[in-house]
Amino acid sequence: MTGPLPDPAPPLAAGPAAGAAPEEFDVVIIGAGLSGLSAARRLQSRGLSVAVLEAQDRVGGRLLTNAPIDLADGTQSRPIDSGGAYVGPRQRRVLGLANELDVTTYKIYDQGNGLLRMNGQVTISEDPLPHSAIARLDLNDLILKTDSLIEQLEDNFWEGALASKLDSMSAEAWITTTGWTPEAREYYRVLIRSITCVEPPEVSFLHWLAGIRSAGGMRRTLAGDGGAQERKIIGGAAQLAHRLAEDVLMPGTVRMLHRVISVHYAHPDLPSAASASGSLNVERPEDGARIACENGAIFLAKRVIMALPPTLYPTIEFCPPLPAPKMHLAQRMPMGCVIKTMTFFKRPYWREKGLSGTIIDDQGPLALTYDDCQPDGSCPALVGFIVAGRALIESSSLLLPECPASQAAAEEQRRKLVEAQYRSILGEDIEITGYIEKDWSSDRFSGGCYSGVFIPGTATLLAGILATPHGPIHFAGTETCDVWFGYMEGAIQAGEREACQVALSLGLPSLPISTYPSMSQLNSPLSSRSPSSMYLSTAAQSDCQSSPSSSSASDSETSSPLGFDPKAGAPLSDKLAGTVPGSPVLPSASPSLFSLAESDASSPSDEEGYEPQQWADPEYVNWAAKAEHIPLWPYPKIQYWLPSVSTLAKMTVGASVVALAASAVAAGVILRSRLN
Amino acid sequence: MTGPLPDPAPPLAAGPAAGAAPEEFDVVIIGAGLSGLSAARRLQSRGLSVAVLEAQDRVGGRLLTNAPIDLADGTQSRPIDSGGAYVGPRQRRVLGLANELDVTTYKIYDQGNGLLRMNGQVTISEDPLPHSAIARLDLNDLILKTDSLIEQLEDNFWEGALASKLDSMSAEAWITTTGWTPEAREYYRVLIRSITCVEPPEVSFLHWLAGIRSAGGMRRTLAGDGGAQERKIIGGAAQLAHRLAEDVLMPGTVRMLHRVISVHYAHPDLPSAASASGSLNVERPEDGARIACENGAIFLAKRVIMALPPTLYPTIEFCPPLPAPKMHLAQRMPMGCVIKTMTFFKRPYWREKGLSGTIIDDQGPLALTYDDCQPDGSCPALVGFIVAGRALIESSSLLLPECPASQAAAEEQRRKLVEAQYRSILGEDIEITGYIEKDWSSDRFSGGCYSGVFIPGTATLLAGILATPHGPIHFAGTETCDVWFGYMEGAIQAGEREACQVALSLGLPSLPISTYPSMSQLNSPLSSRSPSSMYLSTAAQSDCQSSPSSSSASDSETSSPLGFDPKAGAPLSDKLAGTVPGSPVLPSASPSLFSLAESDASSPSDEEGYEPQQWADPEYVNWAAKAEHIPLWPYPKIQYWLPSVSTLAKMTVGASVVALAASAVAAGVILRSRLN
Ligand SMILES: Cc1cc2nc3c(=O)[nH]c(=O)nc-3n(C[C@H](O)[C@H](O)[C@H](O)COP(=O)(O)OP(=O)(O)OC[C@H]3O[C@@H](n4cnc5c(N)ncnc54)[C@H](O)[C@@H]3O)c2cc1C
Ligand SMILES: Cc1cc2nc3c(=O)[nH]c(=O)nc-3n(C[C@H](O)[C@H](O)[C@H](O)COP(=O)(O)OP(=O)(O)OC[C@H]3O[C@@H](n4cnc5c(N)ncnc54)[C@H](O)[C@@H]3O)c2cc1C
Repeated sequence: MTGPLPDPAPPLAAGPAAGAAPEEFDVVIIGAGLSGLSAARRLQSRGLSVAVLEAQDRVGGRLLTNAPIDLADGTQSRPIDSGGAYVGPRQRRVLGLANELDVTTYKIYDQGNGLLRMNGQVTISEDPLPHSAIARLDLNDLILKTDSLIEQLEDNFWEGALASKLDSMSAEAWITTTGWTPEAREYYRVLIRSITCVEPPEVSFLHWLAGIRSAGGMRRTLAGDGGAQERKIIGGAAQLAHRLAEDVLMPGTVRMLHRVISVHYAHPDLPSAASASGSLNVERPEDGARIACENGAIFLAKRVIMALPPTLYPTIEFCPPLPAPKMHLAQRMPMGCVIKTMTFFKRPYWREKGLSGTIIDDQGPLALTYDDCQPDGSCPALVGFIVAGRALIESSSLLLPECPASQAAAEEQRRKLVEAQYRSILGEDIEITGYIEKDWSSDRFSGGCYSGVFIPGTATLLAGILATPHGPIHFAGTETCDVWFGYMEGAIQAGEREACQVALSLGLPSLPISTYPSMSQLNSPLSSRSPSSMYLSTAAQSDCQSSPSSSSASDSETSSPLGFDPKAGAPLSDKLAGTVPGSPVLPSASPSLFSLAESDASSPSDEEGYEPQQWADPEYVNWAAKAEHIPLWPYPKIQYWLPSVSTLAKMTVGASVVALAASAVAAGVILRSRLN
Repeated sequence: MTGPLPDPAPPLAAGPAAGAAPEEFDVVIIGAGLSGLSAARRLQSRGLSVAVLEAQDRVGGRLLTNAPIDLADGTQSRPIDSGGAYVGPRQRRVLGLANELDVTTYKIYDQGNGLLRMNGQVTISEDPLPHSAIARLDLNDLILKTDSLIEQLEDNFWEGALASKLDSMSAEAWITTTGWTPEAREYYRVLIRSITCVEPPEVSFLHWLAGIRSAGGMRRTLAGDGGAQERKIIGGAAQLAHRLAEDVLMPGTVRMLHRVISVHYAHPDLPSAASASGSLNVERPEDGARIACENGAIFLAKRVIMALPPTLYPTIEFCPPLPAPKMHLAQRMPMGCVIKTMTFFKRPYWREKGLSGTIIDDQGPLALTYDDCQPDGSCPALVGFIVAGRALIESSSLLLPECPASQAAAEEQRRKLVEAQYRSILGEDIEITGYIEKDWSSDRFSGGCYSGVFIPGTATLLAGILATPHGPIHFAGTETCDVWFGYMEGAIQAGEREACQVALSLGLPSLPISTYPSMSQLNSPLSSRSPSSMYLSTAAQSDCQSSPSSSSASDSETSSPLGFDPKAGAPLSDKLAGTVPGSPVLPSASPSLFSLAESDASSPSDEEGYEPQQWADPEYVNWAAKAEHIPLWPYPKIQYWLPSVSTLAKMTVGASVVALAASAVAAGVILRSRLN
């Protein structure tokens, strides 16, 4: 060592709670992302004591709204969503939550044409699709085949012979064997990269399909208008987490800077593994779990909910260790890689050119951009995503010799690359006034983004145990959800599901927790739905849909059918809707929890049909005025308009057989005519 | 909580070294597997101070030799290798080490026929290959194509257009597009599962090829006789680790039960990330690193060598965090899953039936077995491997409802399944006298076994940075090696390579560390090679072959060509061979370190040609008497004896064109003959 080392305080003994007596709770939740916070509110509303332990000094996890930045023209930006941002009309949990928390959404600007640059060729049209007509038809075929495969999946997508077959191939393998034209293949790859942030060879084709299904199909996943990218939240999506933590949860529930480093838990069927595992001689609790934080704080709890991506499970020491499949989730469900950039411009140059701001570009570094001006058109900006392999490469600055050595220099280099890309598309004379980025590929508290995906061959092995509890430990987080996999909506659903499971396992009679309008309720004539009556009428609708895989485990814990408890209904919607719990609008004889749960779970896309909603933010767009269908995908179902490669091969063989036969006949005729 | 919780001591403050002053070393090595121990000896022999921190209460890691067990017939087994076990004649490092440590190897029994059971059909023959001749030819074609692809790879296997193409497919994708017959495909899958312990869809085809290449090609990897499974170590392979730790390293070097939980390190180009990352306010050292263990012990070091699989990197907190690609190695290089079983029998029933004990069985649970009797034929036993997906399923006992709930019951169930499998093959009347297993899939200190593999699409992105140092942190372990990837040989090579890199980076002039005979030296007439002269003459031969990816990093640290330092030669071989350092046998003008390194690195399979060795254990087999070639693969190179599918397609198209032309001509002739 050339310089003296500072005399360090031992890192583990330091911290606010060192030596303090352990605190006891009914439930400790690890991770204050949307999933953990959603679980916490549901548990608290049932009267359980809850602590949420969060490693960072902020809540929200993969939701991160940056403070406004100063722009070169002397103005200031608005708050900037550097993490999760978009919500769509069928995401009733996240929209319902926004509504409850007085958070407003606005519709993304989508006037004008999209722009596609692929192989140096630029297409400008409403739907930026490949140039050649053949490629468009081929792409159409790929999209329609995707949706048709989705329809054939079992309710538990990882079950059945088709699932095994689809799981044994990567998305890339399917593309190369199914797509005809290089352009259509490449376009489909771009879709995969943009939606999953992994390279097509990395993801199980089955899991890709399951993810798309969980969002209601290919067209809805891709859609701006009517789909997953329809709207954003004014002031930033992280407000959902902040307001949940500050306004809804009891004060002191969330403990920031409490990184959990170990969970010692009781399991009747497991021997104490302390000595064998090399652990220190910390005795395991006789019941529940003991959770230790990096700062020395210790918590005791009857149940633990892990509300973080499976990738991060190994960052916590479990004693006894988690069963092998849970551990291998961390290795077989890698996170995507994404760098989300926000670039501010003096003027909205794209709008001036008749462009919407939706740009798909294979030159990169940005694969995809969207308009990100304020709802009133002010503060011109484009949000751009560097995704998948490219994000990993751009993140490698410290390891690759050709990249700059320091992090700041690497950021600066990325900024220059992004600027050059915009100039090459919008013109050399554009004025850029600001830039900010967040490199999620190197974010240690998510391990990457948007979410984890199963690698080929593993979804059939591991998807079924994602949400299965293990002893007192439950598993939430968007990776474990049943609907809108990888989205905020899924994070909420998974959190609420586990809150329900935990409450049931602790012997609470029932947990009707949904305060969200269901699609079918929104289907009734709009005039009859005032916000208050809407919320009350939906209080009976339970969201405690156990994931199919975990229901058998919890079934055994809840032997009797559970009745409905009116007092428990809609605790938070009351606050907002100003009605009284137990009002006569509540159904008097509700179905049991599990019958509701099952009927909900049986619809994998969560809701039947597509219904416009208007209760969220009438000020920006009249949702109800929208068409009943999603108009995104412009081409009809002409799946067999063009034959597939295998059909072509069969046709060739057939033709040659026919030709051979014909020539044989001809030869015979000739011979005969000669002989005659 | 139903029962009272014990009042726990805070887990982090406890332990032997809590509050003690930090200890200072030149180098701290994390992990006392073969790689870490090999690095340690090389550094100590260069006069550097070294500590090896090991989480478990034993050294060896993935080498684990269990104590003898009591058998049902009243006898005792010999020590049992439940981890790495086999060594082959071209693994000069591990054989050289065994020789140095007075550890002896013996040849595996391979008399008699192998047995293959596939789709219920049993084949018994010297090479247990698929039944049908077509399938055998097809398999032959697959194997030869594999070797031919391997020859086309770049020296840095992850570079070049071919690499991108091969990386974008899984091994499964290649099998399905290349194999003709279901039997040959399935057989090739069995090979992948047995060699990598992952399912074929999980592994990048490129990385599969690179792994095979690093072991010298397909035939050598598969071979018993002359290949990777030729011999085992008497008394168990873990002796290599134990003797290194006890007899070779300085006393006190290895610290058992020191699980490292954090590494804070200096990096000139990185801002302090302590506050941003949510870490406690532990100041980072100004130089080198501060390593903290679970038991509270703190170490300061100029350099750190990580000698554990990348999967485990996230179990250690790095401050600042490791660059994204290093982190994503953990997610994109999953470990295999294997349960290694040892079953003891009253008599060697298989030998009595003329079988070698090599059984490949698709019914499972065991995919593969070998004879594991003692060299003298005593203590009849078969070693059996449950691998890949099947191992994961058999490890899922605590999560899958159909499996038993307790770990002991799960083990018992596996034992019964294994027993039933042996009975179905060897006869119902066999007497089993003992059983022991090790489930590596749930081993938290390896994360799985035998080693990590790259998932499809990622080898081209990440293989190049596996061994790249980051600030004061270096990376070893068999996953980072250049030769015999995943084997003990690779673990040693990687450890020694990083020892060399670290020494260079600390300014030590040169590091000729190899004491192993090279293949070419062994090629000289045996009479001229006494052990002592052999060691001395090889002292000049350096093993500091930097991995191609990291050489550019170290190049900059060593600007001048490095001369050879005679004093540094062969420090440990002296001890064993009884010679004096600096003896005249040492070459006086040795080539520079890097020229040696480069010439070595340019041969990806580490050595040219196949040379028999006899210096290891003459008592069991006379190696020199063996043939010069590896006789494993029984079929000749008739790659195009059978056309490939694409050739067939072309032939079909060609035939149909010809036929069409012929029929057109014929029709013309007919017409003309009619018209005439
Ligand atoms: C760039 C980007 C764009 C996205 N776009 C969208 C979008 O448009 N629409 C959409 O719906 N979704 C989007 N997502 C995904 C969405 O943000 C996530 O699905 C959602 O936020 C996940 O919530 P979660 O609670 O499951 O996990 P997280 O938000 O990851 O929460 C996990 C929490 O655990 C904490 N933690 C980690 N380790 C520990 C520990 N050891 N101890 C204590 N706490 C710990 C973390 O700090 C974090 O707060 C996007 C994500 C990103 C990054
Ligand atoms: C069943 C099985 C069969 C195999 N068969 C063969 C074979 O026949 N031939 C062959 O050559 N190879 C075989 N192998 C592979 C061989 O065993 C490995 O390649 C080799 O042992 C790897 O050595 P390593 O030092 O790289 O890693 P490891 O042996 O895994 O060493 C890593 C060490 O780090 C320690 N550690 C982990 N976390 C921490 C922490 N936080 N702090 C401190 N220490 C930590 C671990 O406890 C471990 O001791 C087999 C492996 C298995 C499991």
